[in-house]
Amino acid sequence: MATTPKPIFVLNGPNLNQLGTREPEIYGDVTLADIETMCQGQAAKLGLSVDFRQSNLEGELVTWIQEAQDSASGTIINAAAYSHTSIALYDALKQLDQPIIEVHLSNIYMREAFRHHSHVSSLADGIICGLGAKGYTLALEAMAGLIQSKG
Amino acid sequence: MATTPKPIFVLNGPNLNQLGTREPEIYGDVTLADIETMCQGQAAKLGLSVDFRQSNLEGELVTWIQEAQDSASGTIINAAAYSHTSIALYDALKQLDQPIIEVHLSNIYMREAFRHHSHVSSLADGIICGLGAKGYTLALEAMAGLIQSKG
Amino acid sequence: MATTPKPIFVLNGPNLNQLGTREPEIYGDVTLADIETMCQGQAAKLGLSVDFRQSNLEGELVTWIQEAQDSASGTIINAAAYSHTSIALYDALKQLDQPIIEVHLSNIYMREAFRHHSHVSSLADGIICGLGAKGYTLALEAMAGLIQSKG
Amino acid sequence: MATTPKPIFVLNGPNLNQLGTREPEIYGDVTLADIETMCQGQAAKLGLSVDFRQSNLEGELVTWIQEAQDSASGTIINAAAYSHTSIALYDALKQLDQPIIEVHLSNIYMREAFRHHSHVSSLADGIICGLGAKGYTLALEAMAGLIQSKG
Amino acid sequence: MATTPKPIFVLNGPNLNQLGTREPEIYGDVTLADIETMCQGQAAKLGLSVDFRQSNLEGELVTWIQEAQDSASGTIINAAAYSHTSIALYDALKQLDQPIIEVHLSNIYMREAFRHHSHVSSLADGIICGLGAKGYTLALEAMAGLIQSKG
Amino acid sequence: MATTPKPIFVLNGPNLNQLGTREPEIYGDVTLADIETMCQGQAAKLGLSVDFRQSNLEGELVTWIQEAQDSASGTIINAAAYSHTSIALYDALKQLDQPIIEVHLSNIYMREAFRHHSHVSSLADGIICGLGAKGYTLALEAMAGLIQSKG
Amino acid sequence: MATTPKPIFVLNGPNLNQLGTREPEIYGDVTLADIETMCQGQAAKLGLSVDFRQSNLEGELVTWIQEAQDSASGTIINAAAYSHTSIALYDALKQLDQPIIEVHLSNIYMREAFRHHSHVSSLADGIICGLGAKGYTLALEAMAGLIQSKG
Amino acid sequence: MATTPKPIFVLNGPNLNQLGTREPEIYGDVTLADIETMCQGQAAKLGLSVDFRQSNLEGELVTWIQEAQDSASGTIINAAAYSHTSIALYDALKQLDQPIIEVHLSNIYMREAFRHHSHVSSLADGIICGLGAKGYTLALEAMAGLIQSKG
Amino acid sequence: MATTPKPIFVLNGPNLNQLGTREPEIYGDVTLADIETMCQGQAAKLGLSVDFRQSNLEGELVTWIQEAQDSASGTIINAAAYSHTSIALYDALKQLDQPIIEVHLSNIYMREAFRHHSHVSSLADGIICGLGAKGYTLALEAMAGLIQSKG
Amino acid sequence: MATTPKPIFVLNGPNLNQLGTREPEIYGDVTLADIETMCQGQAAKLGLSVDFRQSNLEGELVTWIQEAQDSASGTIINAAAYSHTSIALYDALKQLDQPIIEVHLSNIYMREAFRHHSHVSSLADGIICGLGAKGYTLALEAMAGLIQSKG
Amino acid sequence: MATTPKPIFVLNGPNLNQLGTREPEIYGDVTLADIETMCQGQAAKLGLSVDFRQSNLEGELVTWIQEAQDSASGTIINAAAYSHTSIALYDALKQLDQPIIEVHLSNIYMREAFRHHSHVSSLADGIICGLGAKGYTLALEAMAGLIQSKG
Amino acid sequence: MATTPKPIFVLNGPNLNQLGTREPEIYGDVTLADIETMCQGQAAKLGLSVDFRQSNLEGELVTWIQEAQDSASGTIINAAAYSHTSIALYDALKQLDQPIIEVHLSNIYMREAFRHHSHVSSLADGIICGLGAKGYTLALEAMAGLIQSKG
Repeated sequence: MATTPKPIFVLNGPNLNQLGTREPEIYGDVTLADIETMCQGQAAKLGLSVDFRQSNLEGELVTWIQEAQDSASGTIINAAAYSHTSIALYDALKQLDQPIIEVHLSNIYMREAFRHHSHVSSLADGIICGLGAKGYTLALEAMAGLIQSKG
Repeated sequence: MATTPKPIFVLNGPNLNQLGTREPEIYGDVTLADIETMCQGQAAKLGLSVDFRQSNLEGELVTWIQEAQDSASGTIINAAAYSHTSIALYDALKQLDQPIIEVHLSNIYMREAFRHHSHVSSLADGIICGLGAKGYTLALEAMAGLIQSKG
Repeated sequence: MATTPKPIFVLNGPNLNQLGTREPEIYGDVTLADIETMCQGQAAKLGLSVDFRQSNLEGELVTWIQEAQDSASGTIINAAAYSHTSIALYDALKQLDQPIIEVHLSNIYMREAFRHHSHVSSLADGIICGLGAKGYTLALEAMAGLIQSKG
Repeated sequence: MATTPKPIFVLNGPNLNQLGTREPEIYGDVTLADIETMCQGQAAKLGLSVDFRQSNLEGELVTWIQEAQDSASGTIINAAAYSHTSIALYDALKQLDQPIIEVHLSNIYMREAFRHHSHVSSLADGIICGLGAKGYTLALEAMAGLIQSKG
Repeated sequence: MATTPKPIFVLNGPNLNQLGTREPEIYGDVTLADIETMCQGQAAKLGLSVDFRQSNLEGELVTWIQEAQDSASGTIINAAAYSHTSIALYDALKQLDQPIIEVHLSNIYMREAFRHHSHVSSLADGIICGLGAKGYTLALEAMAGLIQSKG
Repeated sequence: MATTPKPIFVLNGPNLNQLGTREPEIYGDVTLADIETMCQGQAAKLGLSVDFRQSNLEGELVTWIQEAQDSASGTIINAAAYSHTSIALYDALKQLDQPIIEVHLSNIYMREAFRHHSHVSSLADGIICGLGAKGYTLALEAMAGLIQSKG
Repeated sequence: MATTPKPIFVLNGPNLNQLGTREPEIYGDVTLADIETMCQGQAAKLGLSVDFRQSNLEGELVTWIQEAQDSASGTIINAAAYSHTSIALYDALKQLDQPIIEVHLSNIYMREAFRHHSHVSSLADGIICGLGAKGYTLALEAMAGLIQSKG
Repeated sequence: MATTPKPIFVLNGPNLNQLGTREPEIYGDVTLADIETMCQGQAAKLGLSVDFRQSNLEGELVTWIQEAQDSASGTIINAAAYSHTSIALYDALKQLDQPIIEVHLSNIYMREAFRHHSHVSSLADGIICGLGAKGYTLALEAMAGLIQSKG
Repeated sequence: MATTPKPIFVLNGPNLNQLGTREPEIYGDVTLADIETMCQGQAAKLGLSVDFRQSNLEGELVTWIQEAQDSASGTIINAAAYSHTSIALYDALKQLDQPIIEVHLSNIYMREAFRHHSHVSSLADGIICGLGAKGYTLALEAMAGLIQSKG
Repeated sequence: MATTPKPIFVLNGPNLNQLGTREPEIYGDVTLADIETMCQGQAAKLGLSVDFRQSNLEGELVTWIQEAQDSASGTIINAAAYSHTSIALYDALKQLDQPIIEVHLSNIYMREAFRHHSHVSSLADGIICGLGAKGYTLALEAMAGLIQSKG
Repeated sequence: MATTPKPIFVLNGPNLNQLGTREPEIYGDVTLADIETMCQGQAAKLGLSVDFRQSNLEGELVTWIQEAQDSASGTIINAAAYSHTSIALYDALKQLDQPIIEVHLSNIYMREAFRHHSHVSSLADGIICGLGAKGYTLALEAMAGLIQSKG
Repeated sequence: MATTPKPIFVLNGPNLNQLGTREPEIYGDVTLADIETMCQGQAAKLGLSVDFRQSNLEGELVTWIQEAQDSASGTIINAAAYSHTSIALYDALKQLDQPIIEVHLSNIYMREAFRHHSHVSSLADGIICGLGAKGYTLALEAMAGLIQSKG
């Protein structure tokens, strides 16, 4: 099947709107807007489009994942803190019948113990973590392959 | 005391709006609208009315439970994923001075270990689980008895 | 298939023979004989019959569950204390190819931690708990539906 | 109140019928019949009578404890292995409205870890352990006091 | 540095809007409005101002904490149930470069085990708990000192 | 010493009477009677005799193990579910001064976690598991050797 | 051997000096002086003498146990709170070559979980708990037997 | 009732005598004598007096708490390391019928895991931690209120 | 299918080369060479051949298991210490499409707790343990049956 | 600094030599040789070279990581089973002063619990998992960036 | 720097005053006085002096460690039972700015599990255990080196 | 017995060959060759000889320990990472009938939690840790004493 015209959802969880302005020693000085720009650029190269969103509300992220079922061809998610606590996100992702890739900017296995388990991980096709903003563009590249091979 | 004219709140948690369209092998093909219809029918038979709601937002569910104190005569709740993670729901229910029945469509004890504990269970008068949509109408039947005996 | 003429087994575990005479603040003053009468009445309404038994012996309950395979169309079980400790009951129920509903009079999740896990739960089609004697008649109602839909 | 004419039940759990013939390095060479004789003698001195029983069946012990409610003025119990595993015994003892003393011949805290917890302990008025057959006669002496003070 | 003209944020989590109307045996009959009045009075005495808010939504609290970075000189937070479950709040507070004081009305160490751990505690400069509404005014007093010493 | 004329006890626990009629995908279609026949045949070849029993009652199995001390030259036991829960069986076996071999038809380490620990294992001379009915005849062969070397 | 003229040490741990004046609902209104009097009386009857002491200091109790080796024929110890925390007491008792009986006034298994383990228990010949002041005189009676049988 | 003329006990545990001379990066350079001076000043303002003590001995602290029952109107305690290990202190405080406030200079929840649990916390009316020497004067202020409201 | 001409691999893990020369109270005085001889004899009787090896290197055992896929008709493995620690062995065995039997000379359930779990067990068709060198010949007998029934 | 002429080490752990020939439902039918070819191709595109190795021996992998310090500009490692058990690998990687990326073909968080923790993860700059052979080429792409930014 | 004229403190915890008179199978028959003599001899050889003390009181040991800051050039400590329970000792040692060596006469890792963790270990420069009295003289030798290298 | 002419084996585990070139802030700049030289010197003084080896392979270390039985008079072992994971080393050392001393250069109790348990510790006569290269020469000195006293 040819590349679907539906966009890739790139969903970002709580506090990621602060990126580049807080704790640069962990996250660097790239802003979320910068990452969106990088994603749009990479998607264009791959013949894909991207719908890029951020929310601090667990329930809004749940609703967006539900929306992805009909409106997206694949979902890339950095659920941030909700990765570790949200079964609601887990349930929404479990019902999603399309490729899913989990991204984390920092290496969560180098940080506090409560970040070592992610409910998202056991539902994702692939996981990329610790590679900063670059992780998003690699995820798009991998997503292109997953959509093609499942297409 | 005669049956109170206040309705029974039937509150539904995250992802239940997807019912009937996702994972039919677990949840069947009944939609949440179908369940509301069944509840309205059963309530009518029992001389009760029902206020049926769903939200993906933990905080909105908290607010509805607070509202139940003055506006409902009893609360039936299927908190879905928030059953397992939300102390905020627990606190709201703890302050609710009326009959509470917990319902789960599927048998949560047959599923992932993180679904085996529900914060709601220790505050509910009764628990009905694994009996699908039928569980809601049985809960209404039991609620009628609880309201009468406490009335 | 029409309703089977085989009875529903209603099996009761240890100490339930004391019902109504001990700890009324937890269990109320209804006796097990009262519950049997309620079950017989409810079964009659549903066009079912009931074979109602109680034993303090784990092994006798095991034998009755084995007997249910050929002699019952469904099994409702309140295994009381053995719910929490008996793998022998678990094994017997696992081999039973018919609808199973677990009932508990009190809400076991409000009580001691060692009552929060039931070996029966993961094998039952449905679970009803905390609703007192009413739980038995609701279980019969649900059982009627399960037999019909599987029939 | 004067001493009740109802006997003290002295209930013994599984394998205690082997006493004096097995593992004398742990239990000594006193037989269960010897202990019964000692108890009868001590009871006579205290103006009490004793109903002394042993069973390997958990359910039979449950039934005897139920019987104690009407037929005994106090219960001394060495539940042996069932001390550590039986919630059914726990439930029966919990419903018993009379003095209860737990006895163990050996010091269970010097033995395997699975013997360190006894369901009986949290329901007994007193616990005597490690003092061999002497523990039974001390228990009777203490029981006499408990009956008197509660009488 | 002289006292900053930016207000102290006093943020209150889920169910605190019910204060004074529910469970008075735990929380007393002071309402959240009463506490706000007390805080405004105390702040005035200390030459400070207070921005007092409450939300049932985890994500809204996250957003307010982000807002505090530019709009507040210090944050006093009673995150209620979210104290125990929210890593999203933790992440927001971790990025906040100003004094933080955690307040709890009741002594959380006297209550259910799941209230004994607070994600907020390890990020707060100080913690005041169990002293009721008085805890808020003491927190303001302490906050005045912290702002001065860091100023 | 020549082979003792006392039989080998082959004791079978709860639900094994159902063998061959339930869950053939786990246990195959061999019945317990078939296994007894195989054991009698193998015993005959080895110059031994076999006393083959089954019970659903924990306490009856305890009594049979006690009986073995005087009436058997060795005990082969498949305690089924009681392997995992019965300290009473453990105590009876601990007092048994003769060779003991534990047998399980299925590989208990491939099944539910609660089957991975057997109280019997730490008291048995040998353990054979996962080899189906064949495990019984291998156990008899091993038992012949143990009796000879201890004889 | 005849009864040794060395006294029995009766050692009491922290807070027992408050007995009879604090928490009478748990400990009754008997004072430690009353218990000493009861012990002296019971010892006289048994042809024994008693050296009765109390300390709030862990190290002083250690020293007294060391002293017991040469100056006492047996040691009865109610180590109170130090039972649960003191390895120093454990080490001192482990080096003591004479009968040891542990006494607790209340039933420690009915109280907080941190009281369920006692370092003393695994070193004592016998344990008596939950029988109030009577436990001390029963301990003396048992001690008389232990000294005689070891004598 | 008017303010009692009995003093407030301010009890300090092990190593606090070193304050101001060791680990200033954690505890600052204020000495315990400085804190006593601050407490005396604050008490004078509140119309209270203070009896300020420090000990490295667990048993001496136990004795002082016992003394408080008759000699103090309230107790403020910084038990330092003994907070985390001493059930003897717990027992002494449990018997104390007067307001208790726990103080810690540093935020114990930011430090080693073994400092996160304090036996004192579950018995204190209020807890103030992480606010340095200021925590003592706030505790006195809160104590004044507690004495008044209980007076 | 007739018996395959490919040999049975009998693989032995670390320290088994020391057999018969070390800790004879646990392992007896039979050497590994003796066991090989017994296996060759038993294999001959069963019409099988045996390829018998030992290594102290985890990686060499992995390589041999990989080799078994093409060169053996079944694998008998006593992985000794690596049973308890090696996921690499587990992965190699998981990929092996032929009968596997695990053997242990001693009863690992009577020994240190770290020997109670074997990664091999959950992948083996059968397990024989505690029966010494005899366990190897019984394993060969069972293997013959497994190959035949799968052939 | 310009791109170093030293190669990237791509190290593969136990059983990866079997790739494409075993368990294709988990790992697909790509062989390790195929992956090496893909890596060489990708490296060429990026102006890098690759030294691609596989070993079943933990110690050999340790030695290769030591060798990387002087001979490689970055290390990509799929340690397979040793990821979960080897502290020796952890120590070797900890001493390696160059970019490290961990790769897993399958999503280890969807598999057995013992695969959820990797000692490598907490030392890697980035982690890519679940994306099959594609994960290696993405890792090379990320490595190119890391070398440049650190160069 | 030349050797400091301040002595080395050698501090010994509870029950070590009994050395040589109790449990010689664990500790041998060397007395604490013998060890002091050995230490004095060894110190003389090294040009050091020794201040050798023992106490059964946790608080006294705390005080001595505080004293060491000004009066000793290094501290060797065998805290015996307090090693495993005393955070007060931990706090005192943490504030000590000089070399610390922990000594244990027996190998604590061969003994009860509660001896396997020592609060002292994580603060000591070095640990010597299991080497008996010799451990003290080796510790002095090591201390001489530490003082020199830090001098 | 005079000193045996067999050498002392000094065995070093994985990554110790890197010593002095990696992580000098933990291990200093002494190389393994330097340590061997120090050991040879110290051994000469003590009239002993040393056979000094290092391997990254667990199985090779196992083989060397087996070799020690006949070729060494005592074994000093720094098993590095394998200390924490290798039951194979444990089994080899358990069969070794000669003095064993464990050495660690750094204080493993100050480092990651997974280094706090060593399988070697419970089998060693003595343990020296945290004292750097000096620990090896102290171990040789202690070994001389152990060989003499066992000789």
